[in-house]
Amino acid sequence: MPASKLQTSIRQRATPYKSRVERAGVTDFSIVNHTLLPKGFGESQQSDYTHLKNHVQLWDVGCQRQVELKGPDAAHLAQLMTPRDLSAGQVGQCFYAPMVDEAGGLLNDPVILKLANDHYWFSIADSDVLLWAKALAYGLRLDVSVDEPDVWPLAVQGPKSDDLLEKVFGESVRSIAFFRFKKLSFQGHPLVVARAGYSKQGGFEIYLDDSSLGPALWDACWDAGQDLNLRPGSPNLIERIEGGLMSYGNEMTRQNNPFECGLDRYCQLDGSVDYIGLEALRRIDAEGVKQQIRGLIFSGDPCPPVSQAWSVLLNDARVGQVTSAVWSPRFQKNVGLGMISHNHWDHGSEVLIVSEDGEERYGMVSQLPMIDLSTA
Amino acid sequence: MPASKLQTSIRQRATPYKSRVERAGVTDFSIVNHTLLPKGFGESQQSDYTHLKNHVQLWDVGCQRQVELKGPDAAHLAQLMTPRDLSAGQVGQCFYAPMVDEAGGLLNDPVILKLANDHYWFSIADSDVLLWAKALAYGLRLDVSVDEPDVWPLAVQGPKSDDLLEKVFGESVRSIAFFRFKKLSFQGHPLVVARAGYSKQGGFEIYLDDSSLGPALWDACWDAGQDLNLRPGSPNLIERIEGGLMSYGNEMTRQNNPFECGLDRYCQLDGSVDYIGLEALRRIDAEGVKQQIRGLIFSGDPCPPVSQAWSVLLNDARVGQVTSAVWSPRFQKNVGLGMISHNHWDHGSEVLIVSEDGEERYGMVSQLPMIDLSTA
Repeated sequence: MPASKLQTSIRQRATPYKSRVERAGVTDFSIVNHTLLPKGFGESQQSDYTHLKNHVQLWDVGCQRQVELKGPDAAHLAQLMTPRDLSAGQVGQCFYAPMVDEAGGLLNDPVILKLANDHYWFSIADSDVLLWAKALAYGLRLDVSVDEPDVWPLAVQGPKSDDLLEKVFGESVRSIAFFRFKKLSFQGHPLVVARAGYSKQGGFEIYLDDSSLGPALWDACWDAGQDLNLRPGSPNLIERIEGGLMSYGNEMTRQNNPFECGLDRYCQLDGSVDYIGLEALRRIDAEGVKQQIRGLIFSGDPCPPVSQAWSVLLNDARVGQVTSAVWSPRFQKNVGLGMISHNHWDHGSEVLIVSEDGEERYGMVSQLPMIDLSTA
Repeated sequence: MPASKLQTSIRQRATPYKSRVERAGVTDFSIVNHTLLPKGFGESQQSDYTHLKNHVQLWDVGCQRQVELKGPDAAHLAQLMTPRDLSAGQVGQCFYAPMVDEAGGLLNDPVILKLANDHYWFSIADSDVLLWAKALAYGLRLDVSVDEPDVWPLAVQGPKSDDLLEKVFGESVRSIAFFRFKKLSFQGHPLVVARAGYSKQGGFEIYLDDSSLGPALWDACWDAGQDLNLRPGSPNLIERIEGGLMSYGNEMTRQNNPFECGLDRYCQLDGSVDYIGLEALRRIDAEGVKQQIRGLIFSGDPCPPVSQAWSVLLNDARVGQVTSAVWSPRFQKNVGLGMISHNHWDHGSEVLIVSEDGEERYGMVSQLPMIDLSTA
């Protein structure tokens, strides 16, 4: 598909960082949770990738909306919504947590923040978890309020993230452990600052809970980054594929279960915790899955973006699909992610990849994170 | 906001008409229900408007995804999800039906199709009604399957719609009454054809339930329209605002109730049917609403699109907001839609409108559909 214009209305919600993102020269957007996600600032994907791996970037990820559970049954509802055992979780902890329906199909893969024993935020990928949670609370008559608060994450990502955020919040940011958060003061206002984010380059997510402070928070981070070669940025396709980071709606949908997506370690099957989909996941686990997420490394010119799943073939039979792909500077080949059927998912399996424009490329299945056997 | 590029991935689902829409020269998109909605084909909005009012257009509205309820409790669940009394509904009927949560906040405004006494489709606007319905069925232990079927509406809109569809489905299309549907054969495959659609110019929606037939269905309609001055099109902002058609996510959100949106006639309050939000709607109805949807007619040069709500002021006090606006060829003024507070919502009230770029324009509140008093 050729580059297309996005027609927006207020249905595509603006974040509190809008004025600053425009000033920074935003050119491209995506839509997540009915909210604008800035995706490009005039740099090439490769330039952005190299920068992210070496410096520090500021990302408007306000589209990662929060679903807030608060009240006596908040912990109970949180546990019902994920196969991950939350029982030992501590206040100040973040949990990557797949969510499944009664059939084990993936509904989202949020990061859950435990703010208090009766207070959780689900920081969500692109589906209306709010409606799922509200209807469960209604149908099960739970004593919990479920809402979307005025919270808009701003991410600082890249190896110089600690240096930048120390200038904004003080040196205590350095002691935040991975997937933990602290409340740190910004202009007298305590903000949740978590060591997390949608890259493998390190960094933080600041959970701004007062949209009126959006421009000031952006400006403070922006100013603090001026001697750190800061750039505006966004989740980078090359970096995430090389790092094996899946994307809900792309690599995994409601048609997939957590085992297909390599999320076994987040599925407590022993019955010690109860959640929606437990029986289905036990059955799927017992039967074994027929396909699983893999990396793909393939030849040819830099490939176009995937806008409809590409076929992975072996001897003219379809053995999988590619759901995301991009040219990789690290491998000097194309790399992709996708589901591969069980007879062909071994590391090193040779396959043929047919893109949506009909072009054929020879490739190899890889474990995740990816290793290129042909050059190893 | 300047025109922006849309970065797509397979998360923005393609419809079965994708290849044909590209061939027809699509340039602009929006995203609805995680699905691409073609929004422009190189024509100006005004040219498209004039054409829609005089001829016939083919719209890829596959983004109007269906939430299917099927089984013994399907009718019960359908009624729980809307304040509209569905009890007298007949098979073959379509119902415009606001959906609300337990607090009376709007969750969506689908058209419901009654396919059988135990089989409904909710043809939805932009929110994940599927998750709401599935969680209700789970929590309330209802005996109903809830799913998103392989259904992708294609709309034929404009005054020559009957002429076009007669060539595709035969003359029986002419006898389909407004908001009724028939199953008509296309290449031996029965398709739901409803007299409905998101314009005031008449027309049909074809509920294609087999995506493999997408290109063939588009081509059949395309070929049938060649002597009718057919164009590819999409919901037209000018036509919908002039016609007072609201858009979920723009004019109405979960922060609004049906009474604010003038949807009183779809809210059964007498207790004869039970649904989620009944008590809340009774309370809101008794208290009366503080704001209501109105038209706005205002002066000045053609206004830019609304990407964040504009303020409506009177004597420096905020008395409402504009959520959609556009230059109207009919009024030769700008027209908009938005919520206006109760002291100022009378037809003819004079107000000041301040757009997001800070420009001030004098305007007048109008009833819906709009009438311009200043020239009447």
